Amino acid sequence: MSMNSFGHLFRVTTWGESHGPALGATVDGCPPGVPIEAEMLQHWLDKRRPGQNKNTTQRNEPDAVKILSGVFEGQSTGTPIQLMIENTDQRSRDYGDISETFRPGHADITYWQKYGIRDYRGGGRSSARETAARVAAGGVAREALNALVPGIEIKGYMTAMGELDIDRAKFDWDQIDQNPFWIPQGPEVAQDWEDYLQKLRKAHNSVGAIIEVVARNVPAGLGAPVYGKLDTDLAAAMMSINAVKGVEIGEGMAAARLTGTDNADEIFMGENGPEYGSNHAGGILGGISTGQDITVRFAVKPTSSILSPRRSIRKDGTPIEVITKGRHDPCVGIRAVPVGEAMMACVILDHLLLHRGQVGENRGKIG
Amino acid sequence: MSMNSFGHLFRVTTWGESHGPALGATVDGCPPGVPIEAEMLQHWLDKRRPGQNKNTTQRNEPDAVKILSGVFEGQSTGTPIQLMIENTDQRSRDYGDISETFRPGHADITYWQKYGIRDYRGGGRSSARETAARVAAGGVAREALNALVPGIEIKGYMTAMGELDIDRAKFDWDQIDQNPFWIPQGPEVAQDWEDYLQKLRKAHNSVGAIIEVVARNVPAGLGAPVYGKLDTDLAAAMMSINAVKGVEIGEGMAAARLTGTDNADEIFMGENGPEYGSNHAGGILGGISTGQDITVRFAVKPTSSILSPRRSIRKDGTPIEVITKGRHDPCVGIRAVPVGEAMMACVILDHLLLHRGQVGENRGKIG
Amino acid sequence: MSMNSFGHLFRVTTWGESHGPALGATVDGCPPGVPIEAEMLQHWLDKRRPGQNKNTTQRNEPDAVKILSGVFEGQSTGTPIQLMIENTDQRSRDYGDISETFRPGHADITYWQKYGIRDYRGGGRSSARETAARVAAGGVAREALNALVPGIEIKGYMTAMGELDIDRAKFDWDQIDQNPFWIPQGPEVAQDWEDYLQKLRKAHNSVGAIIEVVARNVPAGLGAPVYGKLDTDLAAAMMSINAVKGVEIGEGMAAARLTGTDNADEIFMGENGPEYGSNHAGGILGGISTGQDITVRFAVKPTSSILSPRRSIRKDGTPIEVITKGRHDPCVGIRAVPVGEAMMACVILDHLLLHRGQVGENRGKIG
Amino acid sequence: MSMNSFGHLFRVTTWGESHGPALGATVDGCPPGVPIEAEMLQHWLDKRRPGQNKNTTQRNEPDAVKILSGVFEGQSTGTPIQLMIENTDQRSRDYGDISETFRPGHADITYWQKYGIRDYRGGGRSSARETAARVAAGGVAREALNALVPGIEIKGYMTAMGELDIDRAKFDWDQIDQNPFWIPQGPEVAQDWEDYLQKLRKAHNSVGAIIEVVARNVPAGLGAPVYGKLDTDLAAAMMSINAVKGVEIGEGMAAARLTGTDNADEIFMGENGPEYGSNHAGGILGGISTGQDITVRFAVKPTSSILSPRRSIRKDGTPIEVITKGRHDPCVGIRAVPVGEAMMACVILDHLLLHRGQVGENRGKIG
Repeated sequence: MSMNSFGHLFRVTTWGESHGPALGATVDGCPPGVPIEAEMLQHWLDKRRPGQNKNTTQRNEPDAVKILSGVFEGQSTGTPIQLMIENTDQRSRDYGDISETFRPGHADITYWQKYGIRDYRGGGRSSARETAARVAAGGVAREALNALVPGIEIKGYMTAMGELDIDRAKFDWDQIDQNPFWIPQGPEVAQDWEDYLQKLRKAHNSVGAIIEVVARNVPAGLGAPVYGKLDTDLAAAMMSINAVKGVEIGEGMAAARLTGTDNADEIFMGENGPEYGSNHAGGILGGISTGQDITVRFAVKPTSSILSPRRSIRKDGTPIEVITKGRHDPCVGIRAVPVGEAMMACVILDHLLLHRGQVGENRGKIG
Repeated sequence: MSMNSFGHLFRVTTWGESHGPALGATVDGCPPGVPIEAEMLQHWLDKRRPGQNKNTTQRNEPDAVKILSGVFEGQSTGTPIQLMIENTDQRSRDYGDISETFRPGHADITYWQKYGIRDYRGGGRSSARETAARVAAGGVAREALNALVPGIEIKGYMTAMGELDIDRAKFDWDQIDQNPFWIPQGPEVAQDWEDYLQKLRKAHNSVGAIIEVVARNVPAGLGAPVYGKLDTDLAAAMMSINAVKGVEIGEGMAAARLTGTDNADEIFMGENGPEYGSNHAGGILGGISTGQDITVRFAVKPTSSILSPRRSIRKDGTPIEVITKGRHDPCVGIRAVPVGEAMMACVILDHLLLHRGQVGENRGKIG
Repeated sequence: MSMNSFGHLFRVTTWGESHGPALGATVDGCPPGVPIEAEMLQHWLDKRRPGQNKNTTQRNEPDAVKILSGVFEGQSTGTPIQLMIENTDQRSRDYGDISETFRPGHADITYWQKYGIRDYRGGGRSSARETAARVAAGGVAREALNALVPGIEIKGYMTAMGELDIDRAKFDWDQIDQNPFWIPQGPEVAQDWEDYLQKLRKAHNSVGAIIEVVARNVPAGLGAPVYGKLDTDLAAAMMSINAVKGVEIGEGMAAARLTGTDNADEIFMGENGPEYGSNHAGGILGGISTGQDITVRFAVKPTSSILSPRRSIRKDGTPIEVITKGRHDPCVGIRAVPVGEAMMACVILDHLLLHRGQVGENRGKIG
Repeated sequence: MSMNSFGHLFRVTTWGESHGPALGATVDGCPPGVPIEAEMLQHWLDKRRPGQNKNTTQRNEPDAVKILSGVFEGQSTGTPIQLMIENTDQRSRDYGDISETFRPGHADITYWQKYGIRDYRGGGRSSARETAARVAAGGVAREALNALVPGIEIKGYMTAMGELDIDRAKFDWDQIDQNPFWIPQGPEVAQDWEDYLQKLRKAHNSVGAIIEVVARNVPAGLGAPVYGKLDTDLAAAMMSINAVKGVEIGEGMAAARLTGTDNADEIFMGENGPEYGSNHAGGILGGISTGQDITVRFAVKPTSSILSPRRSIRKDGTPIEVITKGRHDPCVGIRAVPVGEAMMACVILDHLLLHRGQVGENRGKIG
């Protein structure tokens, strides 16, 4: 019942603080025989890594992952995989002045109240740096999924940032990796988003975002009702990411506005099994995957680390105006994209193993 | 790792199908010495019970809860509390024709694909009837909370149904229990909602809704980062409720639209500790409660059981038009209100116990 | 993390007190499609049932199990199976005088100290009656094992009772079910045991016992090192049974007396895979099954409910001499035989599912 | 549900192989504010460390533990504590010839059959080297216990090795740390044990042992019936240690030989609460601590790595005679003493937190 773990059979425990010697993930339950090399995981960490462009923090962490256990001669052995990322750029002087102060919108005050002690350097355990460990673990999950589910694909992208929304009529899957916002839109749109964000940055401000993550070619039958539902675990996984305030499956909150006739995804018989006329359900019915695209969205609040002064208090209760210097993302949502993908990969793999454990293969044939 | 359980220390396992002999909840980890009588739990079950008015299904279940264990001479003993609700109104003939058919928007098809067998009567395990067990367990959690946290209050209400939204400027806490929709609005508004819903019902349609649940006077310090965060567990708890497609904490999805200056809840020193200028965070920072109101919202999709025909397939793959007869709520969101409250109560109690276990009392003093 | 649950994927939660309305087991994670009828479970409950002969308590509980959920048309559906046994013979007057007294060797005092409240009737939750729920759950596990592992066989028997030991040279598998002690010996030996026990009973005394449980034809590869080892889970399962004070795998405590040359089970290649020259290991190496017989032994202490006076105290601290009237077994070890079998069945099924989940099928071929 | 974790609230996950880059423990749930320095943990690791005398393996591992997270300015923060021990003496050439061979009595064959891949170097994950991580975690648990339970004391010692037994009439607590066998006996006895072991070593043989671990001044009330009993968790903890084949609480297996009059620990009222005339129960009744000494014993089999030839097979099924060269303990039981202490410390801390979580303080007063 570790509070720093998630997953049932494929179980990830992350550890580490922003400015400690290292952070990482202990990954237990990976199937044996999965090809795993550090470079495979590094690929996804590099996607998340800060310092790549001016829209993300200028901390220059190489975020190099080391595999300390559980992999032998390039393959998982079925024993725990320890993934370690050393913290090499620990300018803790940037953060010294917050040891006695609570930054508004941060976990400073709640960690202090709860524990009576906190590693205040860079947010300590509550830093978004913890998500690097998730991305590394997600890399392991991706490799295991590739080995078990041919054709599976997991992809995240932004759909909104502040006032901006993507135009779904111009959705372009191939553009996602071509711009710094991971938006499925052409370069002109990306430039608009860039301009918008730079204006906010210059105004010493930040902004929130919405990320959508899609998993394609997931087999039907994954998810274990009623408290290990696939959507339940996805909701928890996404909500556990720093700064996330909302999670949606399929229609999400908009489902409240629909009527039953609008919302029902009609079913037809296809060549390879059931097909659906629409996907309001986001690929999940009764907590179990339908075989359609699994679609999750989550909202990331604007980073609270801004150069604009906000009122707060010190430990001793005296008032203070807080300006958070340091190197911070004006939109942390950008770097949340690979994190959301990683969580999706971990949850789906976990449910694949769970399903195999209890049921074996899907038992109900259609047609 | 039971898939039908939630909670860490206060752990609830529900069991039972819609049309089996009974359903219920096995509640483990309740503190000893909590006053518990069946009537206390029945109070909340009656709130959820169908058949009360024409906006909810006309099934006439008394939903009488029996306590089979864990309570002695009116007090919890610290051992598992078994709560059983017998199914007395099992008109399974209403459902017989769906044994070979998959209703669009229902779990019929996914249960079949996964398990190769399903109790199709009334939706079986995927029926919203399972939520009665949650409400009973939530009643236990409420009593334990009352014993441990003086002044704690948990309240749910609807904030939207289809095209309708509450007017937050006219929010009236005292009206919530005065109308069949649990809306915090006066009787005229309730009448408008009534008219809207009756129109949909007559059109053989249904509609979604948004429910908000607030917990007041929750102490600061609850929640265990980073995967046992209070918001993480609340998201899972709400998403596990039948038909829920989205969960929000505080600003929720709208956080994506805010800037950092707008979103930060400024902190001031009050007489009894820190106070906040706003509550965009929904009472949770870094996964830990701040002492402010904890605010969760979730969207419930329209019930898929409607009298309007929708296209689907049979087990053998042949096409069919499905009309779901039977006694169904045109807006299942109404009955989700007490269910959301129950989940909130269970999650908060669980985190109270977890916090006490690891930390004892809050350790960081302010001022 | 329910404290009244065991198992990982096949997870059993028991509930209920000796003299409450009912007790039972919530069984989650059973594979779907397993044939299950109440009579199949009743068979094992009848084996455990008291009142069958003068060596076990004269309580006359029919111990009739009802299946309340999770089974549809004679097959498991993959959802939780609720098994309930109503308490029909609740002569609580027999126990009334112990409400203020702590019986030596019983849990009376520790339950009181911990919880400050206890259902003192018949030992409440600490009564050996709880084991009826285990036996019912074990019946489910047996059926699932039968469906998944052809030829699997689980059998328990006594090997010692007080001064008496079985003669392994005359071990007779077929005699186990032919005598009230479940000993693998002929009727003359059974008569000796009978005489021995009656002498103790007449002396108002009781005695301990050793039970051995063997599982045959368990496939190699079950067990998940290093804290989900098969022997780890078996040790926990057996030690959790009332009155058990020791657990052994294979050689058990005697392994301390052996040298490395004596202890090593030499390996040979057989027609169907590896074979072993001996089985000091009890069928488990490194926490993983070898395919040999899995052999577990556990010691049950003498029942503390005896008619001989023992010194103790009352709640108020005053001294008292306790004589425990009521209907008690002179050797509770006898009835522990089917309980040990049930625990073995549950643990092996659980590990079978876990192994299938993480690994699928055994991956390493030999020869 | 990590298979490499144990504990409920205080949860330890170990990772790492004998000859990988490092191994360690991820410790979650430690109370905040506990003084923790690497040297405190190193103290216990040094006790377990091999190479100290000729009775333990000559591998020269410094076993230096590094704290990578969860400790700030000398105190635990309540977040996961990562403990890493780098493997510096990896002479994997010693083990090269076992890659295709299964050593009798080892986990080689079962890991291979289960996973189809294994890190054969030094036993990989199944090496007793894994216990170093337990000892480090146990050091954390000891510090937390010291902070929470004044006067608590946990001590292990050997009570038997092969044909030798300690003389309980000459039990000398102060001698335990004065001899290489951790026996509570004077130097002459220690010399006898030394001679016995050297004779076995020269005969290319090894031998088993029994270790007893005692915890003193543990408060009454710890343990959560019926599957989170204190003895259940202790049995699992000890059985999970490499080479352990039996676990006993109090009288252990000998309880089978006792009568009810002999076995009952009579209760008297002392100045500070209940006292007992004896401790057959080993300090645990009904799974809950009584306040008496908690007494656990476990048997360790002789190491299977011996220089005497034993018959076995290769992966391809061909026969082979195996002699295990390398640096191995003739009695691994010696080094199991600090490991058993560590497991005791972890289990008791865990139950202390669990009890505080569910119950708060003991609720039932006596006298």
